[in-house]
Amino acid sequence: MALVVQKYGGTSVGTTDRIMAVAHRLIEAKERGDRVVAVVSAMGDFTDELLSKAHAISAEPPEREMDMLLATGEQVTIALLAMAIHAQGHEAISFTGAQAGIVSDSSHTKARIQEIHADRVNDALEQDRIVIIAGFQALTPEGEITTLGRGGSDTTAVAVAAGLGADVCEIYTDVDGVFTADPRIEPRARKIDTISYEEMLEMAATGARVLQLRSVEFARNHNVVIHVRSSFGQGPGTIVREADETMEQAIISGVTHDTSEAKVTVRDVPDRPGVAAEVFGRLAADNVNVDMIIQNVSEQGMTDISFTTPKEDLVRAKRAVAAVTEALGARSFSVDESVAKVSLVGAGMKTHPGVAALMFRSLADAGVNLDMISTSSIRISCVIGAEQVETAVRTLHEAFGLGEAFVIAETSPSAPGCEKR
Amino acid sequence: MALVVQKYGGTSVGTTDRIMAVAHRLIEAKERGDRVVAVVSAMGDFTDELLSKAHAISAEPPEREMDMLLATGEQVTIALLAMAIHAQGHEAISFTGAQAGIVSDSSHTKARIQEIHADRVNDALEQDRIVIIAGFQALTPEGEITTLGRGGSDTTAVAVAAGLGADVCEIYTDVDGVFTADPRIEPRARKIDTISYEEMLEMAATGARVLQLRSVEFARNHNVVIHVRSSFGQGPGTIVREADETMEQAIISGVTHDTSEAKVTVRDVPDRPGVAAEVFGRLAADNVNVDMIIQNVSEQGMTDISFTTPKEDLVRAKRAVAAVTEALGARSFSVDESVAKVSLVGAGMKTHPGVAALMFRSLADAGVNLDMISTSSIRISCVIGAEQVETAVRTLHEAFGLGEAFVIAETSPSAPGCEKR
Repeated sequence: MALVVQKYGGTSVGTTDRIMAVAHRLIEAKERGDRVVAVVSAMGDFTDELLSKAHAISAEPPEREMDMLLATGEQVTIALLAMAIHAQGHEAISFTGAQAGIVSDSSHTKARIQEIHADRVNDALEQDRIVIIAGFQALTPEGEITTLGRGGSDTTAVAVAAGLGADVCEIYTDVDGVFTADPRIEPRARKIDTISYEEMLEMAATGARVLQLRSVEFARNHNVVIHVRSSFGQGPGTIVREADETMEQAIISGVTHDTSEAKVTVRDVPDRPGVAAEVFGRLAADNVNVDMIIQNVSEQGMTDISFTTPKEDLVRAKRAVAAVTEALGARSFSVDESVAKVSLVGAGMKTHPGVAALMFRSLADAGVNLDMISTSSIRISCVIGAEQVETAVRTLHEAFGLGEAFVIAETSPSAPGCEKR
Repeated sequence: MALVVQKYGGTSVGTTDRIMAVAHRLIEAKERGDRVVAVVSAMGDFTDELLSKAHAISAEPPEREMDMLLATGEQVTIALLAMAIHAQGHEAISFTGAQAGIVSDSSHTKARIQEIHADRVNDALEQDRIVIIAGFQALTPEGEITTLGRGGSDTTAVAVAAGLGADVCEIYTDVDGVFTADPRIEPRARKIDTISYEEMLEMAATGARVLQLRSVEFARNHNVVIHVRSSFGQGPGTIVREADETMEQAIISGVTHDTSEAKVTVRDVPDRPGVAAEVFGRLAADNVNVDMIIQNVSEQGMTDISFTTPKEDLVRAKRAVAAVTEALGARSFSVDESVAKVSLVGAGMKTHPGVAALMFRSLADAGVNLDMISTSSIRISCVIGAEQVETAVRTLHEAFGLGEAFVIAETSPSAPGCEKR
């Protein structure tokens, strides 16, 4: 008897009909003999309605009250899903994040899970019930309601799976799994059958939207096997787990891209110790997330510092950089919002030199200019002009043979693509 | 510095504009120097939307999950109201029922408040914040979310006022106060300035909808002064408090009516000890609320038993009565859904004989036939045909001079009426 955690996102529970369908899936799993825990998001439109109410009242609502407001979304879904299971003649019980023992820190709107007290969920499973847990939300030790930020329900699901010692955490989504590239850009992208935590982390961090970065980190830290699969089909999706010798070792797992960041450059900064610390200390203090950082070599005692940051942090970033530019006596700063980041991810990179060279050569041949470069041991990322992102993705997918040995495969309408035999 | 609890119902917070207006009122009270606690209901339409989703999924949803679902309504309002206060430059904090320390028993959909742990609310008041509490909801000691049944937000407000030792509990509604009769039926009905708990209890129990019975009971038991007033005007409403010699002593305070009950009659029941116990024991076991009970004098060892019950309990009542009719060997039972109850309420009744006689005479003269009669020391109720309820209310209002000494008064559009000078 396996213990399975299944997570359904906002699209999968978007209407009462879809909630009935999810109930049916959970019951099927139960009838196969598994113990079943569901983690669900808010119904698609529900959160939008709440947000429009909030914005009718305040341009800048307090984050604590936003959490209070938005946490109702998942609470509606869990109640309706429990009703749907009862209506089909099975026992279910719903729990809010607080009731499920999900404890977070107090960073409202992007809280981090600290602990799971799974007693109540375990008791309900003992009573042979399907357990339904509100994703995305938690309670602080002081009793404040928090939310976990974008994609937080994935993190809830993985955390619950870890807390319960589940056999697998199934993340149901509107695509068939994790692909070698975004199939909307590269039609020959194929579904990846198995991928390691490390590679998935790099892919999530560089633009693969199917799993939230933090949920993968959590899975790696607690060794939770994730199965990403479609909520509309029945086929297998992508397994994310610890790398071992049985895992297919592609040199490159996939190409990702991300157009959600902007590039900021501070020009002619005096090149003395502590300058970078000053710039990025100020950005951190103002809660600006920074992704890539490049500092040019010094010329006549002056240097340029560039970094990328999510566009949603840009207002705060500009304010912080303006202040620091003045404080440091730098010449000026500039912002470029039409940039994109394209990345190659693959564990085989560690042992196969020449990947970077082939990447840069292919992009150059395709006329793509590189603005910034950063690497990890299993990833190479380049910042390029936003208008070249599709060319870059297709070029790299082709150059590294990621679509090879494919046939036209049956797949969901939202993820048209090809599958390796 | 007074401590004021203000309760706003679903109509008063029905739109984001109205929520802004309520925020403004709370800030005004705060600026007068009071410490302010608001208790609010769900936005008017919000609950309806939730109910329609629930009914799309299940004809008979589990009550625990209904509570889980409906409790989100008030949570949305408290968050939006806190945002609205912040947007107007003041400090506010919202609390769910659970966070406000409102503990109930576990009777889902009609739970009763058992305790209030007001520490967190007190702390927030100490920090000079306006405190906003979700009405209608509570938490059991086991951590289950409950709701308090119809009008439960009134009960929350009174319970919070009791728990905090507030100076007054203001219940804001869409009428100007408690009236001597329903102004939609009797245009000469006038607003009552002050009324005792006992009279208000009888009026609430017999159809005056402005305050929920349980909230008045709670207020009496904890000596909380209630002020019922309009959320659209500024004038004084009706004060509900302990009777004392300063209180105006009308013989009759008001006429109420109620068309929400049905009458059930069990015919030719063997007249032996224990029969009534059997009938009403069974009804209680099946969770059927019973209001009036009449047993006729015995004739040839047989008797009839009649009772009234809320129409919403009628399906359960019929099932229970059918079973008990067979078990007792009674002849049959009948149900009459077109009945109404009209009641006279007044503390002066105790010391003024002849009230009942005048009541019965007036109704007889108006051609109103009496079906059942029941009395308390300060109330007389008659069950009549539903089609005669308006005649009966107007007849009694006139006969007992309840509209006397009136002039046309300024009042809210929803409560057209007259006011005593």
